[in-house]
Order: sequence, then structure tokens, then C-alpha cells
Amino acid sequence: METVRIVERVGFAEGKMAKHALLATPRCQLDLYCLRPGQAQTPHAHPDQDKVYYGVDGTGRIRVGSEEQRLEPGTAVLAPAGVEHGLANDGSAPLVVLVFLAPPPRH
Amino acid sequence: METVRIVERVGFAEGKMAKHALLATPRCQLDLYCLRPGQAQTPHAHPDQDKVYYGVDGTGRIRVGSEEQRLEPGTAVLAPAGVEHGLANDGSAPLVVLVFLAPPPRH
Repeated sequence: METVRIVERVGFAEGKMAKHALLATPRCQLDLYCLRPGQAQTPHAHPDQDKVYYGVDGTGRIRVGSEEQRLEPGTAVLAPAGVEHGLANDGSAPLVVLVFLAPPPRH
Repeated sequence: METVRIVERVGFAEGKMAKHALLATPRCQLDLYCLRPGQAQTPHAHPDQDKVYYGVDGTGRIRVGSEEQRLEPGTAVLAPAGVEHGLANDGSAPLVVLVFLAPPPRH
């Protein structure tokens, strides 16, 4: 059984957001984003992928299209295909976010 | 921005597991499963869908194929397409689980 304990996979990087691949199938992918205060994911869009962010720990600012809001633990946010989206840790605590992608990125 | 605060969507049903649709796109679906102690999701398989369970609150027993293990908060488990899987709340506390599906069920 493919199992991931999130707490065992949290890890941060110097200089930029750390992205950890947790699970991947032909149909979807589950990643963990770890952002220190001040780190951010540059806004971008995927033409053919939907993305769901789910806040695990810490709080940040999420943007989807022209809208921005807080991302808090226990909150899920959809970034639909083709819509620009980005994430920033503008707080003082580490930010940990689960990210579900469907379909997975092409390599 | 499509946003869901999980705590606002938790709700239980008499007699069987409650399943709440949180987000749906042409590529994926996010549901919330709420199981009182003693409730279960009957083991089943989807030929063309991958499913990821993510424990939010409470603990239960999850089965994928012939394997069983505990599902605890902060644990993600993959149920790949074609593999029988099921979930049971065999504990004494309510069980709340996020479920990602890709692609979404056909209607």
C-alpha cells in the first residue's frame, strides 16, 4: 500500500520553496509544498491541469486569477486549468501545503 | 475563487458514511467522507479512477487490495485504479477524511 505520512516529508530549502513529490499515478499527482516565511511560488498557469491546494500548517496568501485570499490549515482552494495561480508565505511561521494535480505533469 | 473550509463541511449521517462533494472539475473531484464509529465504506474498485485518501481527524482502518493499515490524521494513502479499497471507522471518535479522485466519476 502506498502510504505517506506528511510529517515525515516536511522539509524546507534555502532560497526557494521546496516541492516534494508524494504520490504519482498516470491520472494524478500529490505534492507537498514547504515555504519558509518570505518564500513564494511564482504565479503561473497550466493549460491542461487542475490543481487543488490544501493548507496543512501555517498560513499564506494564495492567488487564483485576479483574486487573493488567506490559505489556512484545513482550507482547500481550486486553481482550475488555464487560470494563473501562485502562493506566498507572507507570515512568520513555516507554511506546509498539500497539492493535488490532475492529470500529472508531462515529462 | 473556489474555496472550501473543511471544518464548515463536516457532517455525519445516521446509518451510513456521509460523503460531501467539495470541489469538482472535468479532471478531478474532492470529497469529504465523515464516518461515525462503526460506519464503513464498503470495499469496491473503480476501473479508471485513482483515489487518494488523506486523514483529517480521527483514525480508521483502510484496506487497499489485500493490505490493511491505520489511517491517521496527516496520512495519505493511494487506492490505484482497479484495486479494491475500503475504509472503516473502527475507533471511538468521528473519522473525517479528504478524498481526491482523478478523473471524477462519470454521471
